[in-house]
Amino acid sequence: MTIKETVLTNNLQHLFVKGSFGIEKEGLRTDLKGNLALTPHPEAFGNRKHHPYIQTDFSESQLELVTPPHETLQEQYQWLKALHDVVNRTLDKDEFVWPFSMPNRLPKEEAIPIIDVSDKSEIEYREQLASKYGKKKQMISGVHFNFSFTEEFIEALAQDHLTEEETADLCNEMYLKMSRNFLRYQWLLTYLFGASPVSDDTYSAEESNTYFRSIRNSPLGYHNTFSNKVSYQSIRQYAEDIETLVDDKTLIEEREYYGASRLRGKGKMVRDLISKGTRYVEFRSFDINPLDSLGFSYEQSQFTHLFLLTMIWMERDHSDKEIEEGAQMNKATALENPFEPSQFKKEGIEILNLMSETASELKMEDSYHQVIEKAESLLENPEQTLSAKIVTELKKGKSHIQYGIELGQQYKQTSFEKPFLLNGFQEMEMSTQLLLFDALKMGVETSVLDYNDQFLKLSYTNKVEYVRNGNMTSKDTYISHWIMANKTVTKKVLKNAGYQVPGGEEFTSEQQALDHFVLFRDKPIVIKPKSTNYGIGISIFKKPASLDGYTEAVRLAFQEDAQILVEEYIEGTEYRFFVINDKVEAVLLRQPANVIGNGSDTIEELISEKNKHPYRGVKHRAPLEKIKMGEIEQLMLKEQGYSFDSILEKGKQVFLRENSNISTGGDSIDMTDEMHDSYKQIAVDMAKALEVKVTGLDLIVPDINKPSASDHPGYVVIEANFNPAMHMHAFVQKGSGRNLSEKVITMLYPSIELS
Amino acid sequence: MTIKETVLTNNLQHLFVKGSFGIEKEGLRTDLKGNLALTPHPEAFGNRKHHPYIQTDFSESQLELVTPPHETLQEQYQWLKALHDVVNRTLDKDEFVWPFSMPNRLPKEEAIPIIDVSDKSEIEYREQLASKYGKKKQMISGVHFNFSFTEEFIEALAQDHLTEEETADLCNEMYLKMSRNFLRYQWLLTYLFGASPVSDDTYSAEESNTYFRSIRNSPLGYHNTFSNKVSYQSIRQYAEDIETLVDDKTLIEEREYYGASRLRGKGKMVRDLISKGTRYVEFRSFDINPLDSLGFSYEQSQFTHLFLLTMIWMERDHSDKEIEEGAQMNKATALENPFEPSQFKKEGIEILNLMSETASELKMEDSYHQVIEKAESLLENPEQTLSAKIVTELKKGKSHIQYGIELGQQYKQTSFEKPFLLNGFQEMEMSTQLLLFDALKMGVETSVLDYNDQFLKLSYTNKVEYVRNGNMTSKDTYISHWIMANKTVTKKVLKNAGYQVPGGEEFTSEQQALDHFVLFRDKPIVIKPKSTNYGIGISIFKKPASLDGYTEAVRLAFQEDAQILVEEYIEGTEYRFFVINDKVEAVLLRQPANVIGNGSDTIEELISEKNKHPYRGVKHRAPLEKIKMGEIEQLMLKEQGYSFDSILEKGKQVFLRENSNISTGGDSIDMTDEMHDSYKQIAVDMAKALEVKVTGLDLIVPDINKPSASDHPGYVVIEANFNPAMHMHAFVQKGSGRNLSEKVITMLYPSIELS
Repeated sequence: MTIKETVLTNNLQHLFVKGSFGIEKEGLRTDLKGNLALTPHPEAFGNRKHHPYIQTDFSESQLELVTPPHETLQEQYQWLKALHDVVNRTLDKDEFVWPFSMPNRLPKEEAIPIIDVSDKSEIEYREQLASKYGKKKQMISGVHFNFSFTEEFIEALAQDHLTEEETADLCNEMYLKMSRNFLRYQWLLTYLFGASPVSDDTYSAEESNTYFRSIRNSPLGYHNTFSNKVSYQSIRQYAEDIETLVDDKTLIEEREYYGASRLRGKGKMVRDLISKGTRYVEFRSFDINPLDSLGFSYEQSQFTHLFLLTMIWMERDHSDKEIEEGAQMNKATALENPFEPSQFKKEGIEILNLMSETASELKMEDSYHQVIEKAESLLENPEQTLSAKIVTELKKGKSHIQYGIELGQQYKQTSFEKPFLLNGFQEMEMSTQLLLFDALKMGVETSVLDYNDQFLKLSYTNKVEYVRNGNMTSKDTYISHWIMANKTVTKKVLKNAGYQVPGGEEFTSEQQALDHFVLFRDKPIVIKPKSTNYGIGISIFKKPASLDGYTEAVRLAFQEDAQILVEEYIEGTEYRFFVINDKVEAVLLRQPANVIGNGSDTIEELISEKNKHPYRGVKHRAPLEKIKMGEIEQLMLKEQGYSFDSILEKGKQVFLRENSNISTGGDSIDMTDEMHDSYKQIAVDMAKALEVKVTGLDLIVPDINKPSASDHPGYVVIEANFNPAMHMHAFVQKGSGRNLSEKVITMLYPSIELS
Repeated sequence: MTIKETVLTNNLQHLFVKGSFGIEKEGLRTDLKGNLALTPHPEAFGNRKHHPYIQTDFSESQLELVTPPHETLQEQYQWLKALHDVVNRTLDKDEFVWPFSMPNRLPKEEAIPIIDVSDKSEIEYREQLASKYGKKKQMISGVHFNFSFTEEFIEALAQDHLTEEETADLCNEMYLKMSRNFLRYQWLLTYLFGASPVSDDTYSAEESNTYFRSIRNSPLGYHNTFSNKVSYQSIRQYAEDIETLVDDKTLIEEREYYGASRLRGKGKMVRDLISKGTRYVEFRSFDINPLDSLGFSYEQSQFTHLFLLTMIWMERDHSDKEIEEGAQMNKATALENPFEPSQFKKEGIEILNLMSETASELKMEDSYHQVIEKAESLLENPEQTLSAKIVTELKKGKSHIQYGIELGQQYKQTSFEKPFLLNGFQEMEMSTQLLLFDALKMGVETSVLDYNDQFLKLSYTNKVEYVRNGNMTSKDTYISHWIMANKTVTKKVLKNAGYQVPGGEEFTSEQQALDHFVLFRDKPIVIKPKSTNYGIGISIFKKPASLDGYTEAVRLAFQEDAQILVEEYIEGTEYRFFVINDKVEAVLLRQPANVIGNGSDTIEELISEKNKHPYRGVKHRAPLEKIKMGEIEQLMLKEQGYSFDSILEKGKQVFLRENSNISTGGDSIDMTDEMHDSYKQIAVDMAKALEVKVTGLDLIVPDINKPSASDHPGYVVIEANFNPAMHMHAFVQKGSGRNLSEKVITMLYPSIELS
């Protein structure tokens, strides 16, 4: 039975159309003038020895982004987007990623830097490649599309209990057929997606006005000239042919075999494929799409996926000779004029028809049909192909270099529009997005175990850690969470440990609270429900309360909760101390929503201007919230003798809210460096007393310059928060942002190598 | 200004009536024949060096229960009750606590064992006491009532900012006045509460038919004969007088001074009182009340509290000479015939009137007035006093020893009526009650930080640990909790670590689930909503499902949740493995509610009989729930061809429920010893994979005798529970109960010394 028949007989269509997808995308680091950046690989990306996502290929300047395998293209693109954000935001401000397959402005051959890594054999291999092919050819960059069927599908195919070996044979036969037909028909992909029509003078001295579909896929690009020496008719032959090429020194190592389809297995050696089977196939012929910020569009991936499925689904199959013919057709296509129709157009239409049938028979999503329609249109209209579009733009008078600078800079810029979000993961909590960003950057292997729960699995040098909500980890204990979740318990623990907590009492009845009035009658006090946080039911007496005032406030508080707290009121400013791993990594002052006059604008105009700040958004999708112009703000202005229409004198600050919450338009001001160290030490010691590694402590400190001392504690601690927000420290209205998520990672992996 | 005036002027009445209360109660361990138990102090009570609650006094057989100081009498009694439960349930089954002050049947003088502790100086001191007073006198037991005002009150009194020394003076003067008047009027307490009318022949050879109010308070009891040599007029004089008694060898050590009122301070030496002030006062004249299971009734404590307040509140004050007079009046009262009126009745009425005024002026609870009324009645009716009541009982022909055995055994028995609850803390969760029990038993200092949150603070050799809900501790990590809280994440973690989890998939739409039917069509499966636990929306297909059956089950599951799981169904019995600290400490099998026939009773009668088991209760206030006779049970019987009226043949087991939950009347069967070790090892390893110290793992094990092996895993893990219930393992329907709370304590304090 053919695979197709097995799938149909067993009703496995829905599993057949699933896959495990991975993309590897190279890209040259480039300076602002379009030259190859000669700087070292950024240290912020950590150690390349461990990095699963951000690597270098031949050259120190040649970035390679590797997405982890995922079962849907959607997920695949989440990671591809995220990796682009990570790279764009982390690269030196004077560098960007070159958007073309054909290189940027290269220096002289000898000045092109080979990778500088600790493994000497890796460098040696590149040096051999350099002397064999020349360095410049190695600088051509591309996209590899990795595909395998899911384990579920393999399992379902093998459900009549095949042996391990029989399953390996089955996989090999599937992927070999896919490869044979791919190699035979790859020219169509080059026609559609070829995107390397020209090169810079520094790549090739030959002056030429000729445009191509794909220099990279052409004999002018970088090819093994011996791909016809490897058979795809059986796995044994495939493996032995590659081994022979190594034995007779045609290849330096097996990995030098750059066939457009490369079978990959569990083991490192090609021979392992025979016994263990093919696990996935690397398709390597894709140019970088310079018109997509990710270098390969989602539609291209969809088309490629369907193309690959069709390669199995079709009845046709091909001999090695026909494969070689396919390779020639691909080269011929690559050398075609982008504006001319394909010389193989008729076959192209056939293939698209087969793809269309495949999609229908497999009941694939509509979008798959749409990409076929698009391809049909491109076969009819060559001027719409990628290569033709690029040439059209160049013909307006731009050089390859100029165009590359323009596109590359533009793509980099998009990653800075909302620097607090991580493209691909924008639906997650901001703190989790920040942590993901740093994990990807630093080379920590990461997967999302549960999106709704913000549950990540991290792994670095095989040490697994789990993180929930950005900073809930194995480093904190179960009980410390519960201590902080209970304000009274927190206060008892901190007080017992000798820290300044507001004096006060918890009451469970009005009478009980009234009986204790004497304790409070000569002090400023706060009366509040035990369990609310939002200001409801809270009364503040900055001067000692009268019995009447006290009685009324107690009554109000009991309307909100069955337990109330009467606490000393401490005058002074409240600061959030963010403690991670026994260190205060950030101190934040939050100010109520406010504007400062300029002598000409109305308050409404000032608000509107302030709200334009990129950090201000709505509904917790940004580190700061836009200031509202509602009733509360209006009332607050009125009390101060203003309206939204008042023109505010220059330098005059007007508050629009009493409360300093960020969620009601408050400002965040970083005070990490300004806060006296003695208070930071106290915060660290309190975290230790609570036996907690990550906490946000709210302290009132009347004078941050006057050191705390035994006869002048100079602070009082109001609250200890578990799972404190990190984003509000990272992106502040004023002062330096503090990267706390990175500190979470270094807490989990102290050995991680940092810049 | 007097204290009274200060209190009234400053409106401090409500603080004045508060206090910090502590009770120390001695009691001789006794064998079933009424003889002094000559066994060592039970090892289960741990090391007496650290034990804050369960101590010994003079003799190895003389238990001393010490309650921690608490701010209300209610709390005081919680601890007193709990300590009695702990002692009663822990003592050897052939021993009980003697309920009288006058000793049980004593052996010869030389056979009475002095305490056997590691500190030699403690033993030496007792040996000196023995040779000075004779051992038998030391065996008289009593109750000490410790009292101080609250820190709040002292703070409020000192609110015009007294120096530390002035505050010390103030406290000393208050407690001295309290002591002077107490000593002057103590005879009234002896009249009311005296309860040692007789002694056994082994205590005193003198044959006598005379009954007394209190042998213990009389010259026949155990007294220092030099109490008149210590002045209570100033703290300096008090301290120096005691020092002089030690210097001239009248006293062995300061602590030998056994005044009926003893001032206690911060330091160990009496001299420290001068500079640091009195912190509390020990009132030592109380006989054990044999008619109360705790040895001192709540009403006695209330009376004593009010009596002490009145001693300060009254204008009267007394010289040392008058105090000495008071001591003589107390001895005279002690020697009175219990059935005769007091010779000081008139003064007694005066004191009660003063107490009544005090209670009124301080607006104390009604119950305080009630205890005064009771006392008034006792002054009028001496035959109603404790001593007279005891004598009345003895006159019926019981010996002191017989009566003591009767009462002591009865009190011990009450602690076994509900052995899964801890008297005083019965409103807390059962697991927390069990933990409290073991903490008190093992000598871990314990306080309840929050009753509603089941939040305990433990301390042992100064190492503090917090526990919530019985087993949530610092030994588990924050993240392990969240892993277990998410079933899908738990499954992923366990599967990745190589354990057998039911194969299956999570689906988010009906279509998606239907598309995957092929994966399940040849296996038994369970289809269930992701987030429910109670059986709702779950379908089980023990034989492979038809597409129609599968479709319907998917639809039902989606009615309950937006995500569903389709999992392999594993045939076999489910066991709960309770892992603590890398060891399986209990394995439990839960069986659905059932009865077994005896050939004569109806099912209704069998249920009723089974429900009489003391472990069966309602609404989670017992380890097992009573079997209900509701519609579900009726239906289940009907399906098996029975009704509640059916008479069941002998040995026939009939189930009344499908589900095995304890909460619906299920049985708990301990299988810890029966389960093959290989599965226990797997459970331990899984807990390690989850990085958790306390977890309840639910495993299906088809054959508990056939060892797990690589080619026969023999189990599948269904769930990992955080904060698993402990009580259902401790009190089981069948098999041995397992004490898990003790294991929690030894996990927290590995150094704790155990029997």
